[in-house]
Parts: sequence; structure tokens; C-alpha cells
Amino acid sequence: MNYFITGGAGFIGSSMADALAKDLTNKITVYDNFSTGFEEFLLKLKSLENVEIIRGDLLDESKLSDAMARSDFVFHFAANADVRFGLKHPRKDLEQNTIATFNVLEAMRKNGIDKIAFSSTGSVYGEATKIPTPEDSPFPIQTSLYASSKLAGEAMISSYCEGYGFTGYIFRFVSILGERYTHGHVFDFYKKLMQDPNELYVLGNGKQRKSYLYVQDCLRAIFAVIQNTKEKVNIYNLGTDEYCEVNDSIKWICEYLNLSPKLIYSGGEHGWIGDNPFIFLDCSKVKSLGWHSNTSIKDAVIKTVKYIEQNKWIYTARKGEANA
Amino acid sequence: MNYFITGGAGFIGSSMADALAKDLTNKITVYDNFSTGFEEFLLKLKSLENVEIIRGDLLDESKLSDAMARSDFVFHFAANADVRFGLKHPRKDLEQNTIATFNVLEAMRKNGIDKIAFSSTGSVYGEATKIPTPEDSPFPIQTSLYASSKLAGEAMISSYCEGYGFTGYIFRFVSILGERYTHGHVFDFYKKLMQDPNELYVLGNGKQRKSYLYVQDCLRAIFAVIQNTKEKVNIYNLGTDEYCEVNDSIKWICEYLNLSPKLIYSGGEHGWIGDNPFIFLDCSKVKSLGWHSNTSIKDAVIKTVKYIEQNKWIYTARKGEANA
Repeated sequence: MNYFITGGAGFIGSSMADALAKDLTNKITVYDNFSTGFEEFLLKLKSLENVEIIRGDLLDESKLSDAMARSDFVFHFAANADVRFGLKHPRKDLEQNTIATFNVLEAMRKNGIDKIAFSSTGSVYGEATKIPTPEDSPFPIQTSLYASSKLAGEAMISSYCEGYGFTGYIFRFVSILGERYTHGHVFDFYKKLMQDPNELYVLGNGKQRKSYLYVQDCLRAIFAVIQNTKEKVNIYNLGTDEYCEVNDSIKWICEYLNLSPKLIYSGGEHGWIGDNPFIFLDCSKVKSLGWHSNTSIKDAVIKTVKYIEQNKWIYTARKGEANA
Repeated sequence: MNYFITGGAGFIGSSMADALAKDLTNKITVYDNFSTGFEEFLLKLKSLENVEIIRGDLLDESKLSDAMARSDFVFHFAANADVRFGLKHPRKDLEQNTIATFNVLEAMRKNGIDKIAFSSTGSVYGEATKIPTPEDSPFPIQTSLYASSKLAGEAMISSYCEGYGFTGYIFRFVSILGERYTHGHVFDFYKKLMQDPNELYVLGNGKQRKSYLYVQDCLRAIFAVIQNTKEKVNIYNLGTDEYCEVNDSIKWICEYLNLSPKLIYSGGEHGWIGDNPFIFLDCSKVKSLGWHSNTSIKDAVIKTVKYIEQNKWIYTARKGEANA
């Protein structure tokens, strides 16, 4: 199979590229504008004959369409994932998520490709009224521009399935952790603790409950869905049966680093405007396919910290982006 | 109050402008690119001192923003409403609905305006699993690009409410009928019957069940919601407790016109790809505000036919658009 991966130099995209490239009968095209992706994630892939790496933007329609030629299946992982600062630059979610997804769909149509897997988010449930939240929970009210743009992407993909005979695999992720994770709270906490091991500033009251999934568990779940489902539109929550408080992950990180900083809370149950104080997904649908996660949230947090410890270059690379 | 109406030369927009202009303390700005709106709908308004008419496109951000200055409240009715042919030009829904709505929200933010009413659609429920369909029915899968773009609009508006302190009024309409209705099935059937009174070609099997609302009932419902609700995001279905089959409206139209054409069905339960065979909304939420519809579907259909009969210029004006 010929796979096309948008955001293929990113956290999940490059991990997926690694997984697919192991099968030498696969051909993989990594497409990335390297705005948040890293060349470093592609070091192994670069040398492989069945991998092509293309530097391109999803807003460059003709480059995208040309690059996609001869592909059979599209993994669309590229996105503005800067959830927290969406209100500072509302156009970013529209362009990099909504319009970019439209361009991916149109490029597929032009190239006669009809299978797409899409990374959506558990945030599309807004402040869920049903927890754990199943895929068919009550029609939610959106609270962030990021989730809104992901929902717009889901909706367009579903409509292309209905209207143009596509098959769609839509994954509503909890936060994913693990090797190559380069943003979000574990990353931020580690960074702050390296700067000042005695004090840690925490957004919200630390009691925000979140669910996390380890990246390799996430990839196995994606494969389980693609291999075992046959609907036109296949929508699956991806998470674990566990959740933790922000305070828990702080504790695990500090234990691992052997630190006991003073915790200073900004207060309130929301980390920031549009932050969901509790994302916990009902994952029985994906588990009914035989998949289950192998890694606990605690282990996923520690694996992430270990990776960051061993790859400090990421902090230098990410420096320019602080509060972008 | 100063009201800004996008799509103010259209069916519902111009009717809303008429209603608002009666109160001479209101100032109304009609903004329309006249791509599907009509100068003819504004004949009365043109002569009023409290009405300003601006020819402009929602994709022209600076014109839009300038035009909106000094408004207090935005009615965002402008849209590509060519639901049926969405698959022929998928970019149209993205640009004229999703991006246009984003531009409206940004223009509001620039001008310090924080109240918006938005015409969404009952089609956002896709093939609803719960009928009649309440606002919090199970998270739907989208089936048309039109509904997808309306859902994207809803989501962005809700996020602006959460993030920027806007107040949003989102209306999920059934099809609206009445004076100035210039597209859709009543319009098409009348046109076909004028061309050939002996034969009528019907998309689908005629058993598609639809609910309709008379435009003046619709306006009263919008006012009831705006005057009586206080949430950040107010989402309301607007419809009636009735539905009819396409065959019923054909019968009413033919009775009124005194015709008995032979009916030829294209077959299938869908009129076209993405057509919802049954849209019937649970409107108890809006009715709990004291509103109820005064006009039956049958009367709304007849009022529409009467209007078209008396305004044949619409067919000439619409000629260039056939199957656009």
C-alpha cells in the first residue's frame, strides 16, 4: 500500500511513518511544512528506500495534490495543535485545520484516493454532559476554536464519505503521550522544573482530570480500527479506562526527577479559557475490536519525561514558539 | 438598536429587515452581495431613513468590517443555500458558509459587537437516530457539505461565545416557506408545472418526510428566543409539530393550481445524495418560551405558491442559476 501522511514529521505522524515503513511492501510519503514537525524525527526514515519526505504546506494546493499522486491511503495528522493559545490567533485553526483538511480531501478526490484516517480530538465533546463520554453522546456545544476546527474536519470527511464514496476513519483522541511528545503539560512542567526546581506554577487548580494514551497504544488502536471496521464513516474514541488529575502527573514527574517543588496554582477549575476540566472518553467501541492499552497513564508520563530528558535539543528547537 | 443583517436581501434576511425597520428607533444595515438576494425585496426598505443597504461580499473582510461599524447586533443569514448541488462545487460551502462566518465573527470582534443570531439548519442532525430530533440528540454524523459548513459555523460562534464573551443565538431551521421563497421544492414544482402541467418529475419516491415553517412564524420564534433567553450560547430548533411527505405538498400545489399531472418518480428514499429522508425537529424548547406556529404546513405551501404566482419575475431572475 502507498500511504500519504500529512504532519508526517510530527509526534504521531512520524511514529506512524516508522510503524508503516517496517513493512517493506509499503511506500510512505511524509508531507510536512516543518512548522512544528522535526527533521530529527525522520533520521531513520530518511535512509529508507520506501520513504519519501516532502516539505510542503497543506495550503499549497497544487504541491499537495502532486505529492499525493499514486497514494492509496491518507493519514491526515497535520494540524495546528496549539490548543491553548487559539484565542490569540483565531485564523490559525481555520486555516491550518479546517481549510487544510478541505484541501486534503480535494487533493484525494483529484487523485482518486478514497481512504482517510483523521486525528480528531476528545475536545469535540466540549464540556461533556455524559462522562465517560461515548461517541454518540449528546450533541455538544463547542468551547474552543481548536475543537471547532476539528469538528469541521470530521464533518467534511463524513460528507465526502457520503457524497463521493470515501471511507473515513475518525479518531477522537485524548491527549497522546510518549516518545517525541513536544508540547502540552508534561513538556511544560519538565521545562519549568529545569528552570526552577523549587517552584512550579500550575494553571487552574491542578484538579483538572485528564485522560492520556501512550503513542504506541494509540497506533495499535488506529490499526485495529482500520483493519476491522467496514462502515463508510468510522468514528472511534481513543483513550484508556484511566484518568488522572494534573496533580497526579506533577507528582509522578517530580518523583521521577526526585524534586519537591512548591506548587503555585493560578486557581479555577479551568486551566485556560476553553480548557475542558474533565476529558474522559468511553472507549468501549474500540475495545470491542479486541484492542486494549498496554501502558498506564503513569508509565506514559514517565516514558515522556525520559524521552525529553534524553532529547534536550527539543527545548532549544521549541524556544522561539513559547506562547506563540 | 443598530442591527446588521448579512444576506439582508435574501428570503429570510429581507423579511427580518422589514420586521425590524418598523420600529423607527432601530437602525438597520442590510449587507448582501446580491448573488442570490434581490433588489426587489428591498423596494420598501430603500426609501426608509433607518435602513442602509450595502452591496458587499462576506469574503471582502475590510468592506465587511467597515460596514459593521456602530452595529450592536448581527443577524447572520447569508449563506450558500444551494444544498442539493453541494457536491458539484464543494468549495462553495467552505467559502460562503464556513469562512464567511469566520469573517463575520472577526468583523464583530474588531468592532466590539458581541451578539449574533445565526441561521443553521436541521440538516446538522444528519440521518437523525432520534425523531422528532431534540437539540441534544446523539452526536450526529454529517451527510452533506452544506450541513457540515453550518455545523462549522455553529461551532465557531459557540467558541467565540466561550472565548470572547459573545452571546450567540443559533437556530436550526427546518425548511422555511412563505413570501419571497425563491428556491427549493415548492418553487421547483411550480416551475415544472408551468412548463408542463401534465407531467411532474419527482426526485426520490415522494415519501421523503419534511417539516416546514412559515417565514413569519420563524421570525416570531427568533424574537422569542432573543428576548427570553440568557445563556451564553442559545441553540434552538425552529419548526412545527407537523410534517408532510413530498407527495402531500405536490397534492396541495396541484389542488390549488387545479392540475392533475402524471407523477414520475426517480425512485429511492433520498431525493439526492445527502438529502435527509426525514427531518422532523423536536421544538419543545422554543415552545417552552411561549412561542407556537400559527400557520400550518399546507397554508405555508399555498402562501408560497401564491407569492410565486404573483411574482413571476423571480423565474426570469433565477433562470441563469438552474442546476448551478
